[in-house]
Amino acid sequence: MNAIANRQFRLAARPEGAISASDFTLATEPAAEPGEGEVLVKVTYLSLDPAMRGWMRDAPSYIPPVELGAVMRAGGVGVVVESRDPKFAPGDRVTGALNVQEYATIKGKGLTKIDTRLAPETVWLNVLGMPGMTAYFGLLEIGAPVAGQTVVVSGAAGAVGATVGQIAKIKGCRAVGIAGGPQKCAYLLELGFDAAIDYKNENVHAGLKQHCPDGIDVYFDNVGGDILDAALARLAMHARIVICGAISQYNSTSVQGPKNYLSLLVKRARMQGMVVFDYADRYATGAMEMAGWMAQGKLASREDVVEGLETFPDTLNKLFRGENFGKLVLKVAAG
Amino acid sequence: MNAIANRQFRLAARPEGAISASDFTLATEPAAEPGEGEVLVKVTYLSLDPAMRGWMRDAPSYIPPVELGAVMRAGGVGVVVESRDPKFAPGDRVTGALNVQEYATIKGKGLTKIDTRLAPETVWLNVLGMPGMTAYFGLLEIGAPVAGQTVVVSGAAGAVGATVGQIAKIKGCRAVGIAGGPQKCAYLLELGFDAAIDYKNENVHAGLKQHCPDGIDVYFDNVGGDILDAALARLAMHARIVICGAISQYNSTSVQGPKNYLSLLVKRARMQGMVVFDYADRYATGAMEMAGWMAQGKLASREDVVEGLETFPDTLNKLFRGENFGKLVLKVAAG
Repeated sequence: MNAIANRQFRLAARPEGAISASDFTLATEPAAEPGEGEVLVKVTYLSLDPAMRGWMRDAPSYIPPVELGAVMRAGGVGVVVESRDPKFAPGDRVTGALNVQEYATIKGKGLTKIDTRLAPETVWLNVLGMPGMTAYFGLLEIGAPVAGQTVVVSGAAGAVGATVGQIAKIKGCRAVGIAGGPQKCAYLLELGFDAAIDYKNENVHAGLKQHCPDGIDVYFDNVGGDILDAALARLAMHARIVICGAISQYNSTSVQGPKNYLSLLVKRARMQGMVVFDYADRYATGAMEMAGWMAQGKLASREDVVEGLETFPDTLNKLFRGENFGKLVLKVAAG
Repeated sequence: MNAIANRQFRLAARPEGAISASDFTLATEPAAEPGEGEVLVKVTYLSLDPAMRGWMRDAPSYIPPVELGAVMRAGGVGVVVESRDPKFAPGDRVTGALNVQEYATIKGKGLTKIDTRLAPETVWLNVLGMPGMTAYFGLLEIGAPVAGQTVVVSGAAGAVGATVGQIAKIKGCRAVGIAGGPQKCAYLLELGFDAAIDYKNENVHAGLKQHCPDGIDVYFDNVGGDILDAALARLAMHARIVICGAISQYNSTSVQGPKNYLSLLVKRARMQGMVVFDYADRYATGAMEMAGWMAQGKLASREDVVEGLETFPDTLNKLFRGENFGKLVLKVAAG
């Protein structure tokens, strides 16, 4: 067969601060023929996530960094074009680490079939994908909220945060979101959050005091920095802090440590990190329960779709400028 | 009866940085006659602890601050002189919040009898007292070490730290202590620690790398600051950090937050605060097991005794200069 032209973004340099277009090269190469056990997938949508900044850093982390010259890592959804794994057939809709390119040649065991009758493709990158699983397992397993308690989440209009707040409500908790700008805050209230704090226009300390009169029982942190410190200053006894991310710090060359960490002592509280991959063997259970909530209208999934593979570096930066509204997704091709 | 002259240190000012003698006034007043349910105790030894710095601060914490003009709070041991609580009789040896003075008039329910045949009075301020209980419950309940794992403790030659390391050894763990100076480090090895790192003369990062080849499973933190960051950088997967104190930060006007806290995420680790008072209903159990270990020669208790109530402010500062060697105790009177 004629080789398929595959445009792809490769990591060209490791950014020191903010990501720039010159950190990537856009190359066109023939898509690799699938070998035994491999599948050729046409990428339709890619998930753009804060974690990608960490993967560009040459430092030990929960997964190895992307090597210089390699195609940038990204999760995505797509459609099978050719398969040498008996579990997949052309036309199957799948999700996996498809990376920032138009076609992925990938081992079948790295792919999961998705049911697009249950929810559209982009939802499988959001509530039914990694962000949803992160919210579900992070909140329920690490945060361990109890009905009647107060759950605060930062980055609340983001993919993980919006789902955290909605699950908190489903579990009978008070949900308070912290997000940037009146539009995002209005969106949180639409989603059923009890209160929203606009960190760009309000004093976060005052907002937490007002909206969490009995303190914070669970704080789900996506941002780090000053907002983490404000939450630490407002903990209830035996509070749980879920460290999921620290987007305010990812572009910094030195991380700002939480100077109020001694609240952990005063409040007998704990702060614990989580990585969604640890729950991989339970994703199906999580997705099933979440799909049920979506069907009952209790859980909404909102995606911010930007079209065109070539926009990748600039679109990725929307995350760090706080410009995305809902889960940021890059549309690479029609399905 | 003739009133008993009672010398006492009252809090005169709230220190901004280091404690100075002028933060206290030494007053002499008649000891109060015990009312119904109260006991008059002659103080023999007082426990001087890093936590006292926090009690001088006018900020919300796990117990109210000492009020200006009040006798400075301190735990101590003493002998009953007069009792209007039927549970106590003159001559009984007791421990409780006797405060920085020669005589305490205190409710009987705030006192616990001690058995000085089991261990000398000063040991009841150390391994069988608050520091011992802090080490016992903090390590075993929050740190939850498993035989074969590596336990690191800072402030390791201090009252809490030395006991943490010895209990870690009793539980079959590798114990690594961080302390200041060759003499303290030699003492840790005498106590059975597997390794000691002299933070005043060694690079703590390098020491932890050398002595914790498989990473740190439990880090018991008494100091905060750079040493906490060094430990965070060396965590094993699923590590537990016990936040017991932060002596390096107590005299600072702004606390240095742990900039490596994102290791909690990478290592799926948790950092949790503890306050010994939460375990008050189990002190007797803890003391019984610890006394058993002492009787078997598995657990040593070392006190650094300074004599003379009048030396109190300067003696207290030994803690913050790292000059005490073993549990710092102020001898107020012979028993």
